[in-house]
Amino acid sequence: MKIICSKSDLLKGVNIVGKAVPVRTTMAILECILIDASGDNIKLTANDMEIGIETTIEGEISEPGIVAIDAKFLSEVVRKLPDSDIIITTYDNLKTSIVCEEGNLHFDIVGKSGEDFSNIPFISRNEPIEISQFALKELVKQTIFSIADNDSNKMMTGELFEISEDNLKVIALDGHRLSIRNIKLNNNYEYKKVIVPGKTLNEVSKIVPGFADENVSIYITDNNIIFEFDETVVVSRLIDGEFFKLDHMFSTDYKTKVKINKKLLYDSIDRASLMAKEGDKKPIVMDITDNNINLSITSFIGSMNEDIDITKEGVDMRIGFNPKFFMDALKVIDDEEIDIYMLDNKAPCYIKDAEESYIYIILPINLTNLN
Amino acid sequence: MKIICSKSDLLKGVNIVGKAVPVRTTMAILECILIDASGDNIKLTANDMEIGIETTIEGEISEPGIVAIDAKFLSEVVRKLPDSDIIITTYDNLKTSIVCEEGNLHFDIVGKSGEDFSNIPFISRNEPIEISQFALKELVKQTIFSIADNDSNKMMTGELFEISEDNLKVIALDGHRLSIRNIKLNNNYEYKKVIVPGKTLNEVSKIVPGFADENVSIYITDNNIIFEFDETVVVSRLIDGEFFKLDHMFSTDYKTKVKINKKLLYDSIDRASLMAKEGDKKPIVMDITDNNINLSITSFIGSMNEDIDITKEGVDMRIGFNPKFFMDALKVIDDEEIDIYMLDNKAPCYIKDAEESYIYIILPINLTNLN
Repeated sequence: MKIICSKSDLLKGVNIVGKAVPVRTTMAILECILIDASGDNIKLTANDMEIGIETTIEGEISEPGIVAIDAKFLSEVVRKLPDSDIIITTYDNLKTSIVCEEGNLHFDIVGKSGEDFSNIPFISRNEPIEISQFALKELVKQTIFSIADNDSNKMMTGELFEISEDNLKVIALDGHRLSIRNIKLNNNYEYKKVIVPGKTLNEVSKIVPGFADENVSIYITDNNIIFEFDETVVVSRLIDGEFFKLDHMFSTDYKTKVKINKKLLYDSIDRASLMAKEGDKKPIVMDITDNNINLSITSFIGSMNEDIDITKEGVDMRIGFNPKFFMDALKVIDDEEIDIYMLDNKAPCYIKDAEESYIYIILPINLTNLN
Repeated sequence: MKIICSKSDLLKGVNIVGKAVPVRTTMAILECILIDASGDNIKLTANDMEIGIETTIEGEISEPGIVAIDAKFLSEVVRKLPDSDIIITTYDNLKTSIVCEEGNLHFDIVGKSGEDFSNIPFISRNEPIEISQFALKELVKQTIFSIADNDSNKMMTGELFEISEDNLKVIALDGHRLSIRNIKLNNNYEYKKVIVPGKTLNEVSKIVPGFADENVSIYITDNNIIFEFDETVVVSRLIDGEFFKLDHMFSTDYKTKVKINKKLLYDSIDRASLMAKEGDKKPIVMDITDNNINLSITSFIGSMNEDIDITKEGVDMRIGFNPKFFMDALKVIDDEEIDIYMLDNKAPCYIKDAEESYIYIILPINLTNLN
């Protein structure tokens, strides 16, 4: 194999597919990036058996062939090459050289046989769902923090993607909170409902450039989801099973509604969280009265309390929350003012806008048990 | 005690003295910052018994007093306060409140008695050595990387400061390399020679703002060195003992002199170091012939070699180095072209300019032992 491509194209490609290289594995071949120049294009592929990423880079093939090269090494070397054309040549014994155009710089390493590489399965595709790169990245950022970070319930490590007509609803939950985003698509689609692994969404949102006027095409099959954009294809398994029934969660009853400046609330909870060290589950207590919310927290370190002006509808309320859950939600809401709906101090609290483009549901902490 | 100061002044002061708070200590009082408002000014102090830092902040004392507050807590809280005036009040039982000017935000904690705090010793001062903030910061940056990072030889964990007439010479060494910087001072001083702990120099260079037109005043006594700038005083112990005799190192003999572009050499060694993983002591081999240097390295990962144009005087040379030592020195040299002097492949190699404003001496690695 002999290929010629620019350093910058090669680096971009290696960085993209590198996201599918497992951090730890016992199979050395999975730690490799496959360079496939057996066809018309130079294709780079990595595959950790859950997610596979393939991207095509610009370049010239002077001798067709394939080789697998350790991903970490390839990425470090390419990053440190001078900005010039790069020639990669593999010989019969898999010895591979990476040489600069000027010829004054040579790297020599031993590659692995491309035959041993687990290629991404071929999946037949139907009509894709089109969504802007920007919207997809935002959707993930606005929900991914509320998936569960361990495997005790597999379903909670993914996000529900539910498409009905021209609406895409994304739901993430971890048993203490639930994040929902709704966005309008440009077309109508057949009803579909799948659970996408959180890890896949994290990696996809890192490599999608995020242009508002360019799309990602999403293909959904029985077991897989495919994201296609620019010269890149990401194939991931779906999580098996039926997602949680959540209809009973969406009551519209409330006894207290608070309108508050988001930044003031965020900053105050941020200060309060200084008092709650990792692991000790001190709640931040919200005392809601006419035109005022008093936030307070007490721990072995000391105490903090702060008053913020609000507009209140309904009854007074005293309710406690995990400060982190509130901050996570506030961080991804763009509105300057937000509405918070509460029924009582044991029922889930809702932060949502009028159109329900976002709904963040947070379970309170029972204050009576703490005293 | 009751004081009023702006958030930004308080934060600046806490960040400065915080550098003298030990990361680990069994004495809780050392983890505190002392707020001393018993005199005319608000003074903040921290002291880990090796280095003490004291700074004065703007503000108003409405009730004199002193209190010690946990440094980590104080720094986190102050950072997260809104931009406004801050009122700190300490009551008889050491309960201390930090309140925003608007009165809507209260932090309450328990401080420690200022009486238990180890104040910085009073040291009588003679004539100071004046050096620009910028020059001092640069001097430290350009040498500190070559002190030894463990205590097996205490002397090597510090830097020699040698003042003779209007010259300040700074020397750092770790047994494998030696870094020297000379700078001209604006005045003539009495001859002095002291060993300043590397830790002190690191912290001082972090907190000195670095203005070229503002000075640091350095006072040297038998056991201590004092750095004074702006509203801040840093007092540190000196390292006891006689520094290494180095005169025999400074031979001007050489058999090969190489003039080379610094950036090309740095980038090449940087690439080569990809082949030498932490811990395995693979040398980079330099093969110097007329007009060319060939850099090469071989390890279990693979091999690299690169040619760079040079101007050579003297004989051909083949010599090996620890790539990191060469890169550390090249990183802090500002010249575009550098001169390297070699006697043979076992003798120290010199990188220096004509005026000897810098001299970096690096011991080669014996290549014959490696084959």
